[in-house]
Order: sequence, then C-alpha cells, then structure tokens
Amino acid sequence: METIIAMEFAADRLRLIDQRKLPGTYVFYECLTYEDVEFAIKDMVVRGAPAIGAAAAYGVALAARTYRELEATAFRQKLETALTTLNDARPTAVNLMWAIKRMRAKLAFVNDSAIPSAYQVLKQEADAILAEDIAKSEKLSAFGNGLVPQGATILTHCNTGSLAVPGLGTALGIVKAAHRVGKNISVYADETRPRLQGARLTAWELLQEGIPATLIADSVAATLMRDGKISLVVVGADRIAANGDSANKIGTFMLSVVAQRYKVPFYVAAPVSTIDFACPGGGAIVIEERNADEVTCIEGVRVAPEGIRVYNPAFDVTPAENITAIVTEQGILYPPFSGAISRLSH
Amino acid sequence: METIIAMEFAADRLRLIDQRKLPGTYVFYECLTYEDVEFAIKDMVVRGAPAIGAAAAYGVALAARTYRELEATAFRQKLETALTTLNDARPTAVNLMWAIKRMRAKLAFVNDSAIPSAYQVLKQEADAILAEDIAKSEKLSAFGNGLVPQGATILTHCNTGSLAVPGLGTALGIVKAAHRVGKNISVYADETRPRLQGARLTAWELLQEGIPATLIADSVAATLMRDGKISLVVVGADRIAANGDSANKIGTFMLSVVAQRYKVPFYVAAPVSTIDFACPGGGAIVIEERNADEVTCIEGVRVAPEGIRVYNPAFDVTPAENITAIVTEQGILYPPFSGAISRLSH
Repeated sequence: METIIAMEFAADRLRLIDQRKLPGTYVFYECLTYEDVEFAIKDMVVRGAPAIGAAAAYGVALAARTYRELEATAFRQKLETALTTLNDARPTAVNLMWAIKRMRAKLAFVNDSAIPSAYQVLKQEADAILAEDIAKSEKLSAFGNGLVPQGATILTHCNTGSLAVPGLGTALGIVKAAHRVGKNISVYADETRPRLQGARLTAWELLQEGIPATLIADSVAATLMRDGKISLVVVGADRIAANGDSANKIGTFMLSVVAQRYKVPFYVAAPVSTIDFACPGGGAIVIEERNADEVTCIEGVRVAPEGIRVYNPAFDVTPAENITAIVTEQGILYPPFSGAISRLSH
Repeated sequence: METIIAMEFAADRLRLIDQRKLPGTYVFYECLTYEDVEFAIKDMVVRGAPAIGAAAAYGVALAARTYRELEATAFRQKLETALTTLNDARPTAVNLMWAIKRMRAKLAFVNDSAIPSAYQVLKQEADAILAEDIAKSEKLSAFGNGLVPQGATILTHCNTGSLAVPGLGTALGIVKAAHRVGKNISVYADETRPRLQGARLTAWELLQEGIPATLIADSVAATLMRDGKISLVVVGADRIAANGDSANKIGTFMLSVVAQRYKVPFYVAAPVSTIDFACPGGGAIVIEERNADEVTCIEGVRVAPEGIRVYNPAFDVTPAENITAIVTEQGILYPPFSGAISRLSH
C-alpha cells in the first residue's frame, strides 16, 4: 500500500493537497511565498498539527528565498515578520510553534554574509522536519499497533492520517499499521462537525487503504460505545499539556466522557512535538474560535437562519484522567502522565 | 408573542409548513390524500412525534374522503390500508401509533350506512387530537417552566417547538414559557446532525420568539456542561418506555451521559401520548435507520466519498437513570419512573 503524500517541496514551491476540496476534487495548492503558506494554514488547505508545523517550516524557507537579496538588517526584519506571522496563523496546534522555534534557531546560525544561501539552509531544515515527521509517524504507528487487538473495531474522530501528518498519520497511522499487519480491523469514523474532516478526509483515506469503514454522525458514537461495539477509541492531539491534558478537535472530549463511562480504552496518539512541556494543564491551552459560517453554511449553502449567534470552538480539552494511554514515537505513556511526559527526551 | 401554526386543516386539505425548506424558504405543503400525508411524514415535511401523530390522523380523514363513495367492504379495506400505511410511515415515534389507534377506534363506530359522512367524523376526531395536543403542550410547558431558574442557560437538541408539536412545543415549549414570563433565559441550541433540525428549525423558532440563542455543533455541548455554562438540558422524546427509558433524536443519549457526569439536570418533555405503556424498556424500542445520504450529502452536495458505508440511526435511547425528571401535561414525573408512569391516566 502506497502512503499518501500530502505535502512535497520541489522547484522552489510547497505543494499541498488542497484538503478543502477533498473528496470531490484532488488538486494541489502551490505556495510560492510565506504568505501563501499562511493562507493555506488559516484556510485549512493544510491541517493537522504535524502537517501545519512542517508546512510552516517551508514557509520560513520561502521567505528567505523571497528576501534573499536584501541587506542583513532588512532581511532579518522580514524573516522575523514571516516567523511571527506563521507562528500565529493558528493558535492551538503546538507543533506549529515548535517548528517555528526550530526554524528561528536555524536562522540565528546563519551569518549575515551567508544570507544569500539562507534559503538552502532553511529548506534543508524544513526537509529534516518533514523527514523526521515521517519517521516519527511510522514509529508511533508501530507502537500503537501493539494496543490494537485482532479484529478490533476502532472509533476515529477528525482526520489524523497522511493528510494531517507527514507519513502514515498518528491515530489513523495506528489504524493503518494494524490493518497492514492483517489484524482484520474495522473503523467507525466520526464525520466531525463542523468541518467534516472525518467525512471528507478520513473516509477517503480509509477507502484508499481498503480498510472496512463506516461513517457516522458524531453523536452516534455514544450508542456504539454503550452497546459494546467499539474496541477502542484513538484520536490525535493538537497540544498536550505536561500533565497529559490533551487539546484535540472539538468533539474529542465528549467521546472521552462516554468512553470512560462505558470503559472503552481511549488513546491519544501524537509525536512528542505535540507536547507543550511548558503548559501545566489544559486550562492554559488557547482554544481557537473559528468563523460562524463553518456552522451556518455547508458547501456555500446557508443551513441556519440569518442573525443566529454561533459559538464555534475548533478544539476541546480532554482531561488526562479520561485518557488510557498516550502513544508517541518514543513509546506508549501510561498514567500518571506527568511523570511519563517529564521523562521524554525533547 | 404569536405561536407558530405549523399545521392546519381547511378546504379538505392538510397544510403543513414544509420543514425541509426552512429556514431559507417558508412555504406550505398541501396534502389532499393520505398518500400525500404518508410522503410528508416519511420525507420529514412534518416531523416531531406529536406533529406526526396529528398529521397522520388527518391522513386517515383524507382517506375517508377519497373513498367515501365506495361500498362498505371496499371502503373499510381501503381505510385499513391507509391506517396501516400511515402507522408504518415511521417506526419510532409512538404518538403516530397512538393517533392511528384512536382513528381506527373512531372508524369502528361508523356504521356502514354512515360511510358517506365518515370523513366528517374522522376529521372532527383529528381536529380533537390537534386541539388536545395544543392544550397539552400549553400545560406541559407551564409545568416545565417550574423547573427553570431565573436567568437559566438551557441546552436544547433537535427541534421540539411549534414545528414539532402543535402548540408551544414540548422541550422548546418549556423554554418559551420561561421566556414569556420574563425569566431572562438564554439557549444553546445543538445543530443536531444529520438533519440539522437545531440549525434549521430551532434557531429559526428562537429568533421568531426573540429568545437569546447560540447555535453550536453537537459536540460543543460537552465542554459547555463541564465548564458550568449550562443550567439544564431539556429534550423531547419520540417514545418513552414504561420504565422511563426514552428514545429521542440521535445525540440525546450522548448529552445525557455528559450531563450525568457533570451533574447538569436533564429533563425529558413529552405528552403522555409519547409513553408506550406496553414497552417495558428501551431495548424494546425500534430505532429507525434512515438513508445514508442524510450523512453523505448536505443540500444536495456530496461531502463524503462515494463508496463509504454509513450507519445512520435517527434516534437513540437515553436510559431512565440519566433522566432527572419527565415533564408531561399531567405533571412532572420523578424517579423511580416506573411507578410514576403507572399512575398516569391514559
């Protein structure tokens, strides 16, 4: 099985599968400038915490290319603007800040005299991030596979596969790993309102992989869990606090409450770059609020009356106590998560 | 405040607000035959357990009009087909079966010689059901209002107002009653996937009533409940078993699990005609499965890939243990519900 390549950098441009248009249309969105990358992140051409981080890293490299002929002070000012702009493109996924921090550090090592070649240096760093992401995703998926019983029925939320994560994915990477070793698994995929990443993206990836899958409205999951039809839930994360509290796509927390009530194992899968070691707990995680029209309009058609107020948080926080284990590329973490997280190398 | 009239019978036809087209378009759908009513129920031109029951009653009357010139045996065969067809139009809402049973009983009292006037007799019975529904809705709403604190923030699911229930509504009737007496309440309305009755219908009714309201994706409710932002949840029901287990729109059960976890009062509001006294518990309630395209297509646009399997139950069952009280037109029932339900007059 070929793994989907959702992001590639060649000929001085970042090419991204345009995830706004899947599954109906399969086209690439090309970024020639860091502003293109900023737009792609904000408008969710690319989404998924690790993918956002890698894309932003390429955005920094593109900025270095754009401004390569400026003198040092001007160059560094422009690059700082690019770093800050990309860093702030979306607020919740910590992988974005992590990647930007890494690119900023790389840039600091570039001497003024080397500015004309800064683009190459930064592009190599972004390439390294992408390659490491892919390797981490493979490792994480292999570790997670160890948690999946033969014949398991797995519940997924949002999209956490190759579209969200360079490589196999995080939560969906585990699902694919279990499928590829012949465990005869099947999936219930939450559609994931409001952006429908489950319906649009996860269903598409599962069909590509040939994994038996059933799409459900998000609220159907509760009945399935109560009736013993779900062996385990596995979700991704956008930011994990030092105590294990995990921010992920809106709806994840609700699943975790039901999973705990009905004793269904609930796993979070994310690379260590998703852990915010400086964040003590979920209360400190900034939750992005997105536009009302994600809820009131679908495919450009208005489904709610004009004038209705909307509350549209993109994420919610699942408390550590609702999480059975956290799967990373460094291994599987079990409660108490504070200790397990503090022992990770980063 | 005028109460919305979603159903009226005049000039030998049943006029229904076409709920498939709200909030964008406000038009009436006219039923001249029982088959028109059957279609309206199946395709959800009219929905909501009490409204379906009343509409079906008029459908029986329309059948008597259509076949009024047949001789007795043929007439009774045709009417029996109409009764059975309407009874089976949707499987979960017990008000439908209740109304059909009542119409069948009325028909049994019509002598063969009186068949030409059976239409009038049956129309009067349907009028009586509608009028009683309206009166019950007012009473239920007034009882329920007693449960609503001043300044409450109320979470609703699906649509349970004047579109679903002749009169004020059930759960939404309680909301309106509290608003009308000046309790300064506000509402978070679940959009209610897959049919979006919350976004399309409840948001519309709340705007009509001038009640402060915020629309949310269904899964946002969990965070609101955990954060203490919801004073109470009130939902309708399509069938309540003799032990208090309540079938309602898909997603209700999930809310009830979270409400119980975070000690948010969870009320079910329904007329006594929604109680299936012969049904011992939720396990015996037939749950309707609807078409996959309710999940895969929105406003005619496909949002999930071709070939994906879908599981689309229209309802779920909330166990009695998750319900704080059941509000009926005969008063408020508290646990243990079996005893309280057995003491109702019906």
